[in-house]
Parts: sequence; structure tokens; C-alpha cells
Amino acid sequence: MHLANSRELKERHLKLLSRFKDLGIDALIVTHNPNVFYLSNHVGSSGYLLVTASAVYLLVDNRYAESAKRMQEDSSTACPLLQVWQVSSSYDETLVEGLASLEVSKVGFESKHLDVSRFEFLKKKLIDNQSNVELQMTADVIAEIRMIKDAGEVERIRESASMLTEVAESAFRAVRPGVSELKVARLINESLSRVGFDRVAFDTIVASGPNSALPHHHPGQRCFKVGDLVVLDFGGVLDGYCCDLTRTVSVGQPGPEAQRVYSAVHEAQQAAIHMVRPNVSTVDVDGAARLVLQSNGLGEAFSHGTGHGLGLEVHELPRVTKARSDAKKLEVLLKPGMVFTIEPGAYIPGWGGVRIEDDILVTNDGYSMLTSVARDLVNL
Amino acid sequence: MHLANSRELKERHLKLLSRFKDLGIDALIVTHNPNVFYLSNHVGSSGYLLVTASAVYLLVDNRYAESAKRMQEDSSTACPLLQVWQVSSSYDETLVEGLASLEVSKVGFESKHLDVSRFEFLKKKLIDNQSNVELQMTADVIAEIRMIKDAGEVERIRESASMLTEVAESAFRAVRPGVSELKVARLINESLSRVGFDRVAFDTIVASGPNSALPHHHPGQRCFKVGDLVVLDFGGVLDGYCCDLTRTVSVGQPGPEAQRVYSAVHEAQQAAIHMVRPNVSTVDVDGAARLVLQSNGLGEAFSHGTGHGLGLEVHELPRVTKARSDAKKLEVLLKPGMVFTIEPGAYIPGWGGVRIEDDILVTNDGYSMLTSVARDLVNL
Repeated sequence: MHLANSRELKERHLKLLSRFKDLGIDALIVTHNPNVFYLSNHVGSSGYLLVTASAVYLLVDNRYAESAKRMQEDSSTACPLLQVWQVSSSYDETLVEGLASLEVSKVGFESKHLDVSRFEFLKKKLIDNQSNVELQMTADVIAEIRMIKDAGEVERIRESASMLTEVAESAFRAVRPGVSELKVARLINESLSRVGFDRVAFDTIVASGPNSALPHHHPGQRCFKVGDLVVLDFGGVLDGYCCDLTRTVSVGQPGPEAQRVYSAVHEAQQAAIHMVRPNVSTVDVDGAARLVLQSNGLGEAFSHGTGHGLGLEVHELPRVTKARSDAKKLEVLLKPGMVFTIEPGAYIPGWGGVRIEDDILVTNDGYSMLTSVARDLVNL
Repeated sequence: MHLANSRELKERHLKLLSRFKDLGIDALIVTHNPNVFYLSNHVGSSGYLLVTASAVYLLVDNRYAESAKRMQEDSSTACPLLQVWQVSSSYDETLVEGLASLEVSKVGFESKHLDVSRFEFLKKKLIDNQSNVELQMTADVIAEIRMIKDAGEVERIRESASMLTEVAESAFRAVRPGVSELKVARLINESLSRVGFDRVAFDTIVASGPNSALPHHHPGQRCFKVGDLVVLDFGGVLDGYCCDLTRTVSVGQPGPEAQRVYSAVHEAQQAAIHMVRPNVSTVDVDGAARLVLQSNGLGEAFSHGTGHGLGLEVHELPRVTKARSDAKKLEVLLKPGMVFTIEPGAYIPGWGGVRIEDDILVTNDGYSMLTSVARDLVNL
């Protein structure tokens, strides 16, 4: 895992604490695993944080007690103001006991990352204990801070994304008539490991012929035929950070319709990319891609958003998508340090589809591409 | 993905419906991804089910509409009584609209798999719509059904587990003085892909020397030294099904204390394995391992449970763990078709640790080992 240094952790804490007043809270329970890591450097499948103005409490069970201690021994990456609370019987019980020992009353929690079962347990325990703690829903507070990557994170994602080039080249070589989707998916997975990724970022997609009309097709036994379009969508996790790439290639010479759709999607992607700079809205980036596809009669065929943030998770904020009446809050003004995908596509049921995806960083005066795989539709 | 056949899906539905009366519900909202797949064969990162006595409604967005249609075209694996509800703006809105069209009033939801944010939205929408639907918490209903694997699932897990042998052998060969944890972890990941796994089941653990005292150590730059213990813990996902294996080997000749601890853990594992047969409690399986370690003065050093269920998830029910006053319900009587790990360990801070893990199936008259990797502590 790429660990933040102590100064970066401190900055993250300060950003979070600066939101407390507006949120009307004096502490925040952090239950989402990537957020726990982001704020503390604690690596584990379990662990809660409780963040207050004066301390960061890390709740861990037996399995992580020793590693939590050791993580603090390296002063360059130690988490500032960290205190470890060891969980004896259950995380939620330890949390309630811990809250009782502090002078906090309005305690936020991550409403998208706490299940109803645990929430009801916490509520009941607090009432049983005659606690004056009041739980308050919060959403996306840390996700919004995480949108802007610090220099160390950008460097990890840039390295992660650059490693996809070699993987892509080996995938292209494998796309030949008679080879199955599953075979190529496995080659991609093997290649992702070989070049040094810790794991795949998501299940690799290899979708051929009519299957390429399914944006999230699961690779199967179908074998490629001359004239097929093949959508290859894959990514890896390096030191905790994700990257994501899609290319569409043809098996043999593509037909005129395939060339037409490919050109439109490619033009849509370029239009969206050229929109990227600080203070531009994600809705306008999406709109640029959408307009090109609409003007090519492919508006209906573009059935998803233009992109998604990348970082510790393969889908994070910002979402690059069209405005929706119910989701105005999804719109974000781009800022330097944001990293996301640009991946327009066009899907025609029964015939096939095209998607082209790259990863991009917002810089002070524009953008920087993180992926760089030169590949035209034709795969000869 | 391994798809259940239609008859198996029907059986799963009937098992679920047979619980409705006791739960006091006439429909269940299924939000947990593996549960959605288990009951419908729908593969996707999104998708809800609503199960009633007369139909199984699958809610999917644009990205999955076409694949949901196609999944029903193969009559051998089509989901019985499936109806697709296409989501336009949001899953929760479509769900509320759908509920209004049905004659259901007590509607269960998976309280461990619905976040507070979505739950509050649903509640509010139902009130706004003057709906007479009452939401009811349920927990582990499908998880309990999933504990008992059907024949097709057992076959997939058996194949998955058997593929670990080759991976383990290549890992053992790599453990040599001067090689780093990270290098071996990457070799294991590469090997998992090469033998055909779709992805790792969890982040591979390679923990050497003092790091082996951390049950969930994240592999780092540390290089092996003669005399080190090295814990290797890894698993893969094949066609959706997980397997999980741990071996501990020494670098060069182990010292007497390493041999003593290893023997005790090995004996503990054997004691637990020999307990496995129908109608034995998981607490007693755990107890058998724990007793051996306690009698070797390693009771405190065994800081986690003895095992966990395996299937579509790498941690599922049953938990094989000691009885806890607050968690009586974790105790399960073993039944044929259950699959879980047996993985006692002993961890001595600053010195090192040992864990040995295998995957086991409960049969009609005892057990069957799913992993088979013969390897003693000494790795020469």
C-alpha cells in the first residue's frame, strides 16, 4: 500500500475537521474501509475511526492490534493524534463505550457506509446507556475530500495507469479469430499480475460480436470471428490505487458501420477530454461527449455516464454524468488533482458496441492523460 | 460465473419463501450483490431483487437491461418467475413504484446490506406515497440458505480449491533467503491468474519473521532471512466461487521453538478437522483447536476464530468460532454441504507466528478435504 506521510494525513484531518461546523457535528464515525485507510494508514478488512478535534481513535480487533501499534513506529507515516481502542467483543460496543468517555454530543456517521443493522444496534445501545450522544447522518464528506489527490497519490495512479500499456499490448496480440473471450480475459488477468498489479480493480470485461453491445458483459466461451468488435475493459490496483482502461478492436478488417460508430465514439471521447480544466463542470464534460454521439444518431446508444473518479476505489467521486433533476449534487466543478475516467460508448443491441476509456488528471491549466495506449480500431 | 440451473434456482426460491411466514413478511428486498446472483443468475455490480410468493422482480439499470434479457434466453439457467423492472432514474425510486403496483404490505429488507442513507430514502418515499408497505429488518436469511451448497457449487469450490496446489508449490519454491515478501506475493498473484482463477479472493498475505506475528500482515519490502517463519495466505475466485489456503514454512532449518509452535498449530488443526461431521456445533470444532493450543500454552496466542464459510464470498456463514455471550446465534450445527476453512494460528509478538489453513466440506458421514497441499514446516 502507498502510505501517506504524516503531513499529508494531518492535512486530510484538517480538511475533514473544517467541515464539522457546517455539518453540525463534533465527531465523525468513519466506517468505510478506504476512508479509514485514507485518514489513518490502517490497512485492514476491519477497523473504524472516530475523528474528533483533538484525536483520531482507531478501533481494531485482535487481528490488527499489533499491526496498528507497528504502523505508528515509523514516524514518517505515523498517523497524527492516533489512539488505538482495542475491540474486545464487538466494534459497535467498543464504539459506544468509547463515545461515553469523550465529551462529544453530535456525532456524525457515514450514512452510505453503515448498514441499518449496525445503526439500529448503536442507537439502542446509546439509549440503554442514557448517552447524550446524538447520531447524525452525513454523506460523501470524506469522498469529497478524496476527490482531490495529493502529489503522492497522483504519482501512484500515474504509475498504475502507465503499467496498463504492456497489458493492453498483450491483450491486442491475443485477439485473433477462434480465440475465446474467457481465454483473453485470463491472459489479461495474468498479465496484470505479471506487470506488478496487486489485483484486478474489477472483473475484466472481454465482450465480442453481439456481446459488445452489453456494457458490462461477463466473458464467456464465445470465440472471436472475423468482423467482430471486441471491447476490452480492465484495470489493476497498485499499492492500493486503481486504474481503468478500455479499448475496442476489430477482428480482421472492420465493416463500414463499425468504423462509423468507432469514429463517433472516439470523437466523443476527444471532445470530452478537451473540456477538462479547472472550474469546468462534470456535466459539461459529459455533455461534450453526449453531443457528439447525438449528432451521429447515437444518443440513445450511449446508455451510461461519461466517467467516474479513480483512486483507492475504482468508482469514486466525481461522477462525470449528465444532470438529473434528482441528482443536482452529482455535478462537480473540476479542480486540479482530480482523477477520473473518460469512457463514452455506443451500444447497439444484437449488433455490437464500442467503448474507449482513458484516465485523466486535472492540472492547474488543463489536463494530463494518465493512460497512453495508442491503438486504432483495426487489430491486424 | 457458474450459473445455477433453473431447478436449483427454484429450490433456492422455495427455501427462501418457506422462511417468509416466520419472518412475518410477504416480500423480501434483496440488495446484497452475491445474494442477487445466488437467487437469479444476474451478474452485475448493480441490481436489486424483490422476491414475492409469485414472482422474482429484478431491478437493473440501462447497463444491464440487455444482459438481463439474454440471461433468460437459455432455458436451462433461466430464473423461474423472473420479471425485469428497468430502473430509469434511481433503484430506490423504481423499487418504491414497483412496490405500489403489488399487493404486498410487510416487506423485509437485508438490514446488513442496506445502508442508512438508502433506507431513509425508501422510508420517506413510502410515506410520501401514502404507501401501506411496512419495511421489516431481516438478517442473514439468504446467508443461512447459502451455507448449504448444492452439488454444482461444491463441484466449483472443489475445483477452485484443487487449483491452489500448483500455486502453493510455486510459492514454496520462491521462499528463499534474500527474496522479499512483496516479490513472493506478486508471484502468487501471477500464479493464481496463470492457473485460471478470475481474480484473487483477497489480498495475498506473505508475512515473514516478526511480521508473521501479524495475522493480516500486508506484504512489504522485508527480505527473508534464514530461520524466518513465513506465513503464505492466498486464495482465488473461480467462476464466482472462492477458496482460501494458508501454509507456514521456514527459511532454512527452523529453530526448536518454531518447530514446537508449528506442531501445536498443526495438531490443533487436525483436532478441529476430526470434529467435522453433521450435527456437530461450530463452537465445538473451534473448541477442539483451542484446547490443543491452550494445552500447549498458546491459548492467548490464538487470537482469532478457527474458520469461516466459503462460497460466493470469501467470508460467509458459518463462522467457526468460540461462543460469545452476545453472539450465541453465531453457533451453527454442521450440515452436509457446508464448506468452510479450518485455520488455527499462534502469534507471538516480536517473534513470529504460524497459521495452517485448509478448506473442508461437510459430507453425510463426516468430511472431505477440498485443499490438498502436503507441506511440512521445513522448506528446503
